[in-house]
Amino acid sequence: MVKQLVRDEEKQRPLLDEHEEKHFTAGEVVRDIIIGVSDGLTVPFALAAGLSGANAPSALVLTAGLAEVAAGAISMGLGGYLAAKSEADHYHRELQREQEEIDTVPDTEAAEIADILSQYGLGPQEYGPVVTSLRNNPKAWLEFMMKFELGLEKPEPRRALTSAATIAVAYVVGGLVPLLPYMFVATADRAMATSVGVTLAALLFFGYVKGRFTGSRPFLSAVQTTVIGALASAAAFGMAKAVQSI
Amino acid sequence: MVKQLVRDEEKQRPLLDEHEEKHFTAGEVVRDIIIGVSDGLTVPFALAAGLSGANAPSALVLTAGLAEVAAGAISMGLGGYLAAKSEADHYHRELQREQEEIDTVPDTEAAEIADILSQYGLGPQEYGPVVTSLRNNPKAWLEFMMKFELGLEKPEPRRALTSAATIAVAYVVGGLVPLLPYMFVATADRAMATSVGVTLAALLFFGYVKGRFTGSRPFLSAVQTTVIGALASAAAFGMAKAVQSI
Repeated sequence: MVKQLVRDEEKQRPLLDEHEEKHFTAGEVVRDIIIGVSDGLTVPFALAAGLSGANAPSALVLTAGLAEVAAGAISMGLGGYLAAKSEADHYHRELQREQEEIDTVPDTEAAEIADILSQYGLGPQEYGPVVTSLRNNPKAWLEFMMKFELGLEKPEPRRALTSAATIAVAYVVGGLVPLLPYMFVATADRAMATSVGVTLAALLFFGYVKGRFTGSRPFLSAVQTTVIGALASAAAFGMAKAVQSI
Repeated sequence: MVKQLVRDEEKQRPLLDEHEEKHFTAGEVVRDIIIGVSDGLTVPFALAAGLSGANAPSALVLTAGLAEVAAGAISMGLGGYLAAKSEADHYHRELQREQEEIDTVPDTEAAEIADILSQYGLGPQEYGPVVTSLRNNPKAWLEFMMKFELGLEKPEPRRALTSAATIAVAYVVGGLVPLLPYMFVATADRAMATSVGVTLAALLFFGYVKGRFTGSRPFLSAVQTTVIGALASAAAFGMAKAVQSI
């Protein structure tokens, strides 16, 4: 049976390889760009629309908008950096802890392997040999515990930095789209009309791209992203009008 | 050996249970609250500081700030909702695909089990019985492939909705802190002084809490969170001054 299986495995190696392809998901950089751009399109757009609703002059809408873009890019970028960083720290703390446990309480850790595998209906006959083999290979044992007990993947070392930079730049790019009209049209409410048109088009486009890369239905994603932008700016618009009328 | 192991396992059940405790991480709701509050503290704070830097009157800083809070809460909330939703959709698509593969190309999937386990130095002698047992238990086989091949965890059904609401409300609460002074102090630059003091204190506090709940060093986290807020508002301040001087 085992021999048969090994032959199967060799026979199906090509099958396995093409199989990998099928589980393709977006590159993390692409995803960061999409996150940054679509957030950048939403909040500065909404803020600008809100202020225009309060009859603020274009110059001031632009001041507020660009200030928001600067603040948003930094807080998203640094926030993303720290998030990725603390995830990596968490991984390394857990790695060290697992290593210590394997060294100090190997029987407990061995029992955990059995515990994990028995959740899949495996009995001592099946998991016994696995446990023994892992106990004889501490490096593999550690990796096994990290992945299967804690579900933690080894983080890419430079991920945090590139992610932060990508999101921040993408946020600025996205944020400039709704603000451009205010640079060229002096009266805010006329600038707003252009801004709304341009931004809704951009939201539809990026929602579509987002859907394509995240594996959800592109048209649905386009509509969802645009609706979020529209609702956010409607809320900002209403809020600005309300505050102004106090 | 196997019997010995099973006895070990029973003997160490209490050890296992207390072990669970040690891998405690923040409840997801707590984490959502922290995310929302610390973001809410940062961007509206920076925007208000930026506009004050451009000598805008308190009323207008307040208008812009509250508009930003409304826009940010909605875009973060709905954004978080869609993210969680599309993650859940992704899980269910992959679940269905794995099920189909188990039904249509069981040998390939069996070879994948062998492939996964052989990465941990297991040979046919060890993984052979596991493969056989999983093949005889399709439900467990599917769960095994989801977790160990794709590393996907079953998503909580109502997670997306609660997460969205929690983040949005937390963002509003956080966003109101830096804006309150502008409601009571008419001259923006005097209001700003109060706002800066109150918000930096709040950032320190939430950074500390964040550190406590995410398992990183609380004081480091307090400083990092505060520095992000300070940098973001410095950038917004500088940007507003720059735009204004054009």
